[in-house]
Amino acid sequence: MYRSHTCGALRLSDENKQVTLAGWVQRLRKMGGMTFIDLRDRYGITQLVFNQEVNAALCEQANKLGREWVIQATGTVKARSNRNAHLDTGDIELIVESLNVLNPSDTPPFTIEDETDGGDDIRMKYRYLDLRRPIVRRNLELRHRMVMLVRQYLDKQQFIEVETPVLIGSTPEGARDFVVPSRMNPNEFYALPQSPQLFKQLLMVAGYDRYFQIAKCFRDEDLRADRQPEFTQIDCEMSFIEQNDVLELFEGMARYLFSEMKGVTFDQPFLRMPWSEAMKFYGSDKPDIRFDMRFVELKELTEAGLFTVFDNAPYIAGIAAKGCATYTRKQLDELTDFVKRPQVGATGMVYVRCEADGSYKSSVDKFYGQEQLKRWAEAMSAQPGDLLLILSGEAAKTRKALCELRLEMGNRLGLRDKNTFAPLWVVDFPMFEWDEETGRYFAMHHPFTSPKPEDIALLDSDPGQVRANAYDMVINGIELGGGSIRIFDSQLQAKAFEVMGFSKEQAERQFGFLMSAFKYGAPPHGGLAFGLDRFVSLFAGLDSIRDCIAFPKNNAGRDVMINAPSHIDQAQLDELYLELKQPAK
Amino acid sequence: MYRSHTCGALRLSDENKQVTLAGWVQRLRKMGGMTFIDLRDRYGITQLVFNQEVNAALCEQANKLGREWVIQATGTVKARSNRNAHLDTGDIELIVESLNVLNPSDTPPFTIEDETDGGDDIRMKYRYLDLRRPIVRRNLELRHRMVMLVRQYLDKQQFIEVETPVLIGSTPEGARDFVVPSRMNPNEFYALPQSPQLFKQLLMVAGYDRYFQIAKCFRDEDLRADRQPEFTQIDCEMSFIEQNDVLELFEGMARYLFSEMKGVTFDQPFLRMPWSEAMKFYGSDKPDIRFDMRFVELKELTEAGLFTVFDNAPYIAGIAAKGCATYTRKQLDELTDFVKRPQVGATGMVYVRCEADGSYKSSVDKFYGQEQLKRWAEAMSAQPGDLLLILSGEAAKTRKALCELRLEMGNRLGLRDKNTFAPLWVVDFPMFEWDEETGRYFAMHHPFTSPKPEDIALLDSDPGQVRANAYDMVINGIELGGGSIRIFDSQLQAKAFEVMGFSKEQAERQFGFLMSAFKYGAPPHGGLAFGLDRFVSLFAGLDSIRDCIAFPKNNAGRDVMINAPSHIDQAQLDELYLELKQPAK
Repeated sequence: MYRSHTCGALRLSDENKQVTLAGWVQRLRKMGGMTFIDLRDRYGITQLVFNQEVNAALCEQANKLGREWVIQATGTVKARSNRNAHLDTGDIELIVESLNVLNPSDTPPFTIEDETDGGDDIRMKYRYLDLRRPIVRRNLELRHRMVMLVRQYLDKQQFIEVETPVLIGSTPEGARDFVVPSRMNPNEFYALPQSPQLFKQLLMVAGYDRYFQIAKCFRDEDLRADRQPEFTQIDCEMSFIEQNDVLELFEGMARYLFSEMKGVTFDQPFLRMPWSEAMKFYGSDKPDIRFDMRFVELKELTEAGLFTVFDNAPYIAGIAAKGCATYTRKQLDELTDFVKRPQVGATGMVYVRCEADGSYKSSVDKFYGQEQLKRWAEAMSAQPGDLLLILSGEAAKTRKALCELRLEMGNRLGLRDKNTFAPLWVVDFPMFEWDEETGRYFAMHHPFTSPKPEDIALLDSDPGQVRANAYDMVINGIELGGGSIRIFDSQLQAKAFEVMGFSKEQAERQFGFLMSAFKYGAPPHGGLAFGLDRFVSLFAGLDSIRDCIAFPKNNAGRDVMINAPSHIDQAQLDELYLELKQPAK
Repeated sequence: MYRSHTCGALRLSDENKQVTLAGWVQRLRKMGGMTFIDLRDRYGITQLVFNQEVNAALCEQANKLGREWVIQATGTVKARSNRNAHLDTGDIELIVESLNVLNPSDTPPFTIEDETDGGDDIRMKYRYLDLRRPIVRRNLELRHRMVMLVRQYLDKQQFIEVETPVLIGSTPEGARDFVVPSRMNPNEFYALPQSPQLFKQLLMVAGYDRYFQIAKCFRDEDLRADRQPEFTQIDCEMSFIEQNDVLELFEGMARYLFSEMKGVTFDQPFLRMPWSEAMKFYGSDKPDIRFDMRFVELKELTEAGLFTVFDNAPYIAGIAAKGCATYTRKQLDELTDFVKRPQVGATGMVYVRCEADGSYKSSVDKFYGQEQLKRWAEAMSAQPGDLLLILSGEAAKTRKALCELRLEMGNRLGLRDKNTFAPLWVVDFPMFEWDEETGRYFAMHHPFTSPKPEDIALLDSDPGQVRANAYDMVINGIELGGGSIRIFDSQLQAKAFEVMGFSKEQAERQFGFLMSAFKYGAPPHGGLAFGLDRFVSLFAGLDSIRDCIAFPKNNAGRDVMINAPSHIDQAQLDELYLELKQPAK
C-alpha cells in the first residue's frame, strides 16, 4: 500500500491519525530547525513537517529532497497553529515519522505552478510536466466532467452512442482529408473522417432514431490558433423531428451543462436570430450579444455630393460606443490603425463625437454639418457623451471590418466578461453560397441540408435566396455547434445537386451509397454537432482550444514531445507500395 | 410534429387516446375486409388497423404500402380482442384514421427480421438495412449501455477520461502500424495508435493518478474472424498502486457490469491462477474454467519400452470426459480427425474407455495392460463410464492441441453454456519470451512491464524464468483484458532493455521521450486495457466481435458498403509527395 489517503483528503477530523501519503515535492522551506514540504498530488497539497530537534536524521533526509521528487511519508496528522485558508487541507499538517524516496527527479525545465516561467515551446516539449500545473489539470478535469454530463443528458433522452469507423473513404466537398494507405489493398487509401456525417445519416436510415457520438474528427488544413488537425465533436442526429425539436433538445443540453458546470441559468429561451439579421446588425453569423452596439446603416442619411468616399460606398454603417466621446486623438488613431489591419481590412474610419453640450465633432466636419451629424446620432440612438464609429465600402467587407471594430470596442469597454454568457441560435442560413472562382453554387452547410419548405420554389428561380433549415448555436461570439434538417426525399436531393451543378454521374460517384440507402425508407431526420474543444474552452475561460487538449499539436501539425510525424522505414514504404518524392526546395 | 408516441410506447392505459405514430412497415396482412400493419421503430412494434367497411379509401391506401415504407398514421388506441403477448404493445392496436407516406421504399434485398435470408456479403453491403434487424440493434444498444456503465463506475472511482491523440508517431515492438502521410511535413508520417500505452504512462508521470479512455486503436494485421483493423479498448492506468489494487478495482468493475447488465453475481473472489498453472492444467493462458476436465500428465505412468510413440514423446497428458465411455468408433474417429486438423496440430490420439464393469478398452491395449490403464484412470480420477483422451509429443504443441480437444469435449458435453460465466485472473506471466528466429528475448506483455521483485535477481542468471507483475482477466476462455505494473525505476528499465538486447542507442531512439519523462519523478503505476468489442460480444452471446460493431470491415479490411479503401486523386498524391508503385502480380 503506497498511501492511506490522497494529498487532498485530510481534515481536522483526522487529527492524531497515523497516515501515509505519496506525491510530488512541490516546495521545500526551512525555518529555524524545521523543514516544511508541500506534498502534491492530483487531489491537493498537504504540508509535511520535519523537526531537526525531534529527528535530526529524518530532517537531514528531507532537506536533501528536490522539487518534483516522488516520495512517500508516514506520520501523524496534527492541527496547524496558523491555518492556511487557501488549501482544503489547510487546517492540518503531517508530522512525518518516516520518509521513503520513490523516485528522484531532475530539476524540471520550468516551474510547475499556475504562473510558470516556461514558454510555449518548452512546455509543449515537456507537456507531461506542463500537465502537472493545476491550471492545466483543471481544464482536463472540466473536460472530463462536461463529457460525462453530455452523455448523461443524451442517454436520458434515449440517444444511443454508436461508434462509427475512423478508417473510411475519402469524402468530397469539404476540407482536405488525411489518408491512410492500405497494405492489404495496394494503391488504395482509407481517409480519416472529417465528421461522421454520412454514417449518422445511415444510422437514421437504419432506424436508430437518436444517435450521438463523442467523435474524433480530422482535417488536413493549415492550422490557426483555434484549429487542430484532430478535434472532437459531440455529434448527434435524430429522426422524425422538425427543426424546433432539435433546437429545444440541444438548448436543453446547453442549459443543463451551464447549470451543472457553472451554476448559470437563463430565464428566457435562447434568442433565435435569422442569419440575415445577424449579418445586418452584427456583421457576423456568430454575433457576440453580450453587448448591444448594433450596426446602424447610414447610406440614406449621407447626402450625396459632399464626401466622395461615402458617395462611392454602396454601404455605410456605424456603431455608437457609449461614453467614448472623450476618446483622445491618440485613441482614435489607434482605432483607425486597428480597422486598417489586413485582418480587418477597412481603408479608413469616420468618427463623430457627441459632445456633452449637444454639439458634434467629427472627422468629416468639413463635409457634413451639425444637422446631418445629429440625424446620424439620432438614427444610432446616441446620447451626448457617445462616440460614433463609421465604416464604408463594399457591404460584405465593411460588415466584417465593422464587426471586428465592434468586438474591439466591446473589449475596450469591458463588455465581454468571460463569466457572462449570452447564447443564441442563428437560424435560416442561406442554403447555397455562390463561388466566383468555380462559377457555381456550393452548399453553405452541406449538400444534404434541406431548404425551408416555403423557399423550395426559389430553387429554380433564385437559388441564392433559398433559406435552409440550418442552425448554429452561438455563445459569446463563438460558434459552438451547428446542424440542419436533412433532405430525405430523393427528388428534392436531385434538385439540390442540380443547383450545385453536379451531374447525375458525379452525384452518384460521390454520394452513391447514401443515395442508395435513401431508396430504402429514409425517415425525416436532422441533427447537429458541437465542437467539444470549443465548448470546453468556453467553460474554462480559455482563449485557445489547445489548452483543453491533453496532447495538442503545434501550428505545423507536429507533436514536439514525441516528435511526430517522423520518417518511416523503407521496408514499411515497400509494404505499402509507396515511393517518396522530394519536395521542391 | 411527426409523432406523439413511439411504436413501443402505447399500453392499455392509453385506450381511446388520439395518437400519431411514425415508423417502418414491418408486415402487412389482409384478413376479410381488414388490413393489419405492424409498424416498427427502434422502440417497438404497434399494430395498425384499417377497416374496408369503415373507410374503403384509406384501406385501399394502406393496401398499397410495401415493406419498409416510412409512414405516419393518426388514429385512436383500442384494446385488442386477442392480445399479443410477444409485444410490449400487444394489448392495444391503433384504429387508423389518416395515413401519410413519408417515404416509399424499394423492396429490400433481404428480410429485416432476426432470422434473415440475407447472406453475410449482402448484409454487409446493405449494412444500414442489416442494422434494422432487432437482433443487431440490441447488440449496439447493449454496447451503449455497457460503455455508459463503465464510465459511471470509473468516474465514481475518480478516474478521469483523457483523450490521447490519434495522429502519433510509429511505435516499435508490436504489430504493424497504419501510417498517415503528413502534407505539412513532407515525407514524414504519423502513425495511428495500437494503444494509448505511452500516453497513459505519461499521464501518470503528469500526476493524473487515475486515467481511463474508451479508445479507438488500430492494427494493420492480417485479419481473422475476431480481429478488426480498428477496435476499441477500455484503457486504464493508476498511480501509487500495487498489483492487488488493480485487480480488485477492475474485478469490481466486472462485477458491476455483470450485475447491472446480466443480473449475475459471483459469490467468490475471482480465482487468481498463475500462468504456469493455467498452462499445466489447461494448456492455455486463457483457460475456460466453466468446466473442470484438467490435464493430467502421464509420462511417469507410461512405462518405457512398450509403445514407441509414448517413449519418444517428452510430454504425455490426457483428459477424462465424463460418461463418454460409450462413444462409438465413429465418434472416436471424429475426435482423432479433430486433433489432426492443422489448426490443432496433433499427430494422433489415444483413448481409454473406462467400462461400466471396471475394465478398460483402449487404442493402446496391445502395449499397456489393465493394471497400467487403471493407474492412468486413477491418476485422472476417472470413474467407470468415463473416457480418457490422451495426446503426446512436444510439450507446448501438445498442450495446445489438448486444450483444443478439451474445449471440443466441453462443447460436445454442453459444458460451455453462454449464460454461465466463469471469470478468473491469470497472473505471474513470464516477463520474456525467447524468439528463436531473432535469437533474443522479447517482452511478453510490453517492454515496460515490471518483474516480480523476488525475481529481479534472475534477470541476470535466467531471464526466461523471471515472472512479471502482469495479469489477464479471462472469462469463459476469452481474454477480456490484461495489463501490468510498470517499471518506474530507470535503472531497472535499463536492465530490462539489456535483457531484450537493446543497445542504449536503440532504447533511446525508440523510447527516448518516455525515458526522459521518467527522469522527472515518475510515480509507481500500472494499469490494464479491456477489449471492448470482446467484452460486449461476451455479454451479447456473440461468436464474433463483428456483430457488435456498427460498421465493421471484412477480412480484407474493406468496408463494402462505402467501398473503402479506394483510389485517390493524383493531385492528392502530389500534395503528399507520394508516388504509387505497382504491386507484383
